[in-house]
Amino acid sequence: MPRRADSERARGVRLMAFDVDGVLTDGTIFVSAGGEEMKAFNIQDGHGLKMLRAAGVQLAVISGRASAALERRARELGIDHVLQGEQDKLPAFEGLCARTGFAPDACGFMGDDLPDLPVLLRCGFSASVPGAPQAVRRRVHYVTRAHGGHGAVREVCELVLAAQGKLDAALQRYLG
Amino acid sequence: MPRRADSERARGVRLMAFDVDGVLTDGTIFVSAGGEEMKAFNIQDGHGLKMLRAAGVQLAVISGRASAALERRARELGIDHVLQGEQDKLPAFEGLCARTGFAPDACGFMGDDLPDLPVLLRCGFSASVPGAPQAVRRRVHYVTRAHGGHGAVREVCELVLAAQGKLDAALQRYLG
Amino acid sequence: MPRRADSERARGVRLMAFDVDGVLTDGTIFVSAGGEEMKAFNIQDGHGLKMLRAAGVQLAVISGRASAALERRARELGIDHVLQGEQDKLPAFEGLCARTGFAPDACGFMGDDLPDLPVLLRCGFSASVPGAPQAVRRRVHYVTRAHGGHGAVREVCELVLAAQGKLDAALQRYLG
Amino acid sequence: MPRRADSERARGVRLMAFDVDGVLTDGTIFVSAGGEEMKAFNIQDGHGLKMLRAAGVQLAVISGRASAALERRARELGIDHVLQGEQDKLPAFEGLCARTGFAPDACGFMGDDLPDLPVLLRCGFSASVPGAPQAVRRRVHYVTRAHGGHGAVREVCELVLAAQGKLDAALQRYLG
Repeated sequence: MPRRADSERARGVRLMAFDVDGVLTDGTIFVSAGGEEMKAFNIQDGHGLKMLRAAGVQLAVISGRASAALERRARELGIDHVLQGEQDKLPAFEGLCARTGFAPDACGFMGDDLPDLPVLLRCGFSASVPGAPQAVRRRVHYVTRAHGGHGAVREVCELVLAAQGKLDAALQRYLG
Repeated sequence: MPRRADSERARGVRLMAFDVDGVLTDGTIFVSAGGEEMKAFNIQDGHGLKMLRAAGVQLAVISGRASAALERRARELGIDHVLQGEQDKLPAFEGLCARTGFAPDACGFMGDDLPDLPVLLRCGFSASVPGAPQAVRRRVHYVTRAHGGHGAVREVCELVLAAQGKLDAALQRYLG
Repeated sequence: MPRRADSERARGVRLMAFDVDGVLTDGTIFVSAGGEEMKAFNIQDGHGLKMLRAAGVQLAVISGRASAALERRARELGIDHVLQGEQDKLPAFEGLCARTGFAPDACGFMGDDLPDLPVLLRCGFSASVPGAPQAVRRRVHYVTRAHGGHGAVREVCELVLAAQGKLDAALQRYLG
Repeated sequence: MPRRADSERARGVRLMAFDVDGVLTDGTIFVSAGGEEMKAFNIQDGHGLKMLRAAGVQLAVISGRASAALERRARELGIDHVLQGEQDKLPAFEGLCARTGFAPDACGFMGDDLPDLPVLLRCGFSASVPGAPQAVRRRVHYVTRAHGGHGAVREVCELVLAAQGKLDAALQRYLG
């Protein structure tokens, strides 16, 4: 369970951004002989993102690499902002804030490795995964129990929904 | 082991339906650059479905998404009813009942997430997996010990066969 | 460690045959949209098979399904006999014995599910994996500690090599 | 944590070489029907290699097999020397030493199986993974806690960086 102070931070999130490899996936990069790359996403993460979006929180992905697979999955999930090939993530994040008009404090970010640190230290609510280096885990507001690609994103989506008092409504929709 | 009351429910199942992602797979969605999607099924699940079908229980899959990979695997396994792209699963399930002439109480369903709840609450025998949200797990008749994509479907197939007194016969076929 | 009696049985093995899905793989069947099937083999299993072959034991695979992926991997590994699409494995096994001139008692077989039982009960040395149904596990001479696709085949290869007094020689080759 | 003597050895490494299957991957070989092979690399391993390279250590991969997938991933990561299809790894390693001018003692190697032993016994710093055979594990200077394809390479990269007093600098780059 998140500490109260972290839950307070998640309450203010208007835009939630995610690193891709290691967060939306388990960190595995499938490379074929032809150079095509395949990514392995998680169905429950996908539903969490849809619920968060339906509750009015904008969604973004910020990846240091670029893949057509991510582009496709992001479109299917209705992710608002897809930033790829961003080796330097802080300017990408700050540009996103400028374009959307959200202050960094109104944005959350979830990442799993050192290149994510500058954004994790800048945003209003930061999250990471159990498999991240200690240097990352000890600097974020929340570390998920689920691993990347195995429900970590869903866990963060539900945390934000709960902090904003919208989780019960999301569930009631299915209980008729 | 299922409680006696749940075994009673499984005894009456004439048609057993399954969600796909997270139930017949471990929830991983493989997306290639070209947009093709690959699915990872389990060989022991497949044999369980064949035994259940051979014992006279009709089989169905009801998926919120649509994939050619599922179509192919379902054909190989002899699944009777393949319902894909059903974002709203309850009408799909009720249509299936109408077409087959089975009452909802004579149908089982196995799902792993919130969108499966309306059908899980409507059918005669409901099952889920350990990785489902608590809101799902605590509302079904049976939660498998095996995980989705790793034998959860086989476990349910054997549970239904056992409840109907047909499991020993299925085994004897291989003992000569 | 195998019991002495089972080690005796492994000592007489002149031909070792393996089921594919669940034994040489972890049981996952990857199905693409186009219907191509991918299989996930294990590199250490491959090296075990090569060592067993180099020690003079013939190798076979007997699969109930058919895949071009298996064909390719079997060729790379130098597997002598590739039997695919054999839904009824006992006649396939008996035909193999007839063609090679080996008595069933001089042949080993490793399988993971009920359709493997007739051959497992007929051959001279039978092995299975931890993920096999209890009805299989309790009827074979040896159950591996490693799981299918994660070293189970390597474990059996080393068991046979050790039973035949050839394991140290296989290791010495690399110690110079 | 590595023993002091092993850390001393890692301090002298000018070129670090890695086996591929089982080290940079978890040992899974994905074979498609068309014969294309896919490999599954790890994103955190990739970042470790980049940090090690940026700190001035040359990188090499030495694989007994050959795959276009490895070629591509190695290029993306900036690996200096890609040796593939080297069934006999010791001559490949010695040729690499000759070409680069580094003595074997100034080179590290990480492998997971018996064919890696000749190089592991010849180089200045040797590492392996938990899934390697005991005959390998007990002959190397360091066995990682992380498994192959799941951070084992990252762990060795950080060990070498730490032994050379460069890990803090690598981290500080992201702390601004």
